[in-house]
Amino acid sequence: MKLNDRGLLVVISGPSGVGKGTIRRALFNMPKHNLVYSVSMTTRAKRPGEVDGVDYFFVSKEEFMKRKEEGQFLETAEFVGNYYGTPLDKVNEQLDLGNEVVLEIEVEGAQQVKEKMPDCVMIFVVPPGKQALYERLRRRGTESEEIIRARIEKANREFQLAHLYDYIVVNDEVHNAADRIMAIIRAEHAKTERSIHKYMKMIEEN
Amino acid sequence: MKLNDRGLLVVISGPSGVGKGTIRRALFNMPKHNLVYSVSMTTRAKRPGEVDGVDYFFVSKEEFMKRKEEGQFLETAEFVGNYYGTPLDKVNEQLDLGNEVVLEIEVEGAQQVKEKMPDCVMIFVVPPGKQALYERLRRRGTESEEIIRARIEKANREFQLAHLYDYIVVNDEVHNAADRIMAIIRAEHAKTERSIHKYMKMIEEN
Repeated sequence: MKLNDRGLLVVISGPSGVGKGTIRRALFNMPKHNLVYSVSMTTRAKRPGEVDGVDYFFVSKEEFMKRKEEGQFLETAEFVGNYYGTPLDKVNEQLDLGNEVVLEIEVEGAQQVKEKMPDCVMIFVVPPGKQALYERLRRRGTESEEIIRARIEKANREFQLAHLYDYIVVNDEVHNAADRIMAIIRAEHAKTERSIHKYMKMIEEN
Repeated sequence: MKLNDRGLLVVISGPSGVGKGTIRRALFNMPKHNLVYSVSMTTRAKRPGEVDGVDYFFVSKEEFMKRKEEGQFLETAEFVGNYYGTPLDKVNEQLDLGNEVVLEIEVEGAQQVKEKMPDCVMIFVVPPGKQALYERLRRRGTESEEIIRARIEKANREFQLAHLYDYIVVNDEVHNAADRIMAIIRAEHAKTERSIHKYMKMIEEN
């Protein structure tokens, strides 16, 4: 019996290259979860095969900016001239249904979410050591040494941001990390500040 | 990879009759845990078959009072003329070894522990409803109606103390409750305030 019926907004973030996407996929492959993705809104053109409302909500730049001004996004980001944002109303809809909404985002976006929705669960995924991450960033592709060095510097700055998060989860092995995140979600539902209202009601009524 | 190597002091408490002991036994029967009991100190006489240092540490009343004055207990209680206490040094020894020390205690003792060791994990076990607990208290034995009524009144007072705890766990089904407590222990180890020191060291070193 769960004392907090509302879903949790679970923010999975961490230094670039740490394996956030892999962990998210492992989470969604677990049995019996009620995790849902948040579908982002974007101004970039729809690619062949992409479905509006599934892959992204596709909108014009004007529409995006209007919504942004109205405070309708949990967080927004710009990437090579296109805008991306997490629609607040869709997230709240899912939370009200009791689903846990998982956002896998970069550290800048994570801080925006924390400000807009302070009761979210902020998880910082980290590598088992700096060198492990550097190797991943190098292995990633065929980028120039310059791009790799820029990425390493970015990661070095991001390493220092752990104190802004509620939890630190080491990605030593993806299934361990995913298990730990599931435990965090369970524990958060039992937290007194989230569950005491339903508890008091339950005790009054029966 | 666990970022907090020190064990946690896990305080399992809740209204009388809620089934704390059953949950504690279920926890200790789980596979691959590193939970340990805290052995209490008592002034009561050793019973046949009891082993000093295993069942209790048996001491004289003078010895107990001296230790109490010196602040050597996490919590103490009196029960039918005998004293009981949780020795602080033994608890710290186990925590330093990386074991989770489980204290299953009444609500008064739990508050003493919180004051002495604020970073303990306080868990309030509750029944799925008042009536369920009343029935348990009635079923418990052959006590007079007066004693049962006194117990129910005590439980009613204890129900109100949930806000003093970090987590509220419903004992709807003992294995659910034990699973939830295990998830809480895992999550607590990942909490930033407990893990950031080791994380910063890890990131510096490798």
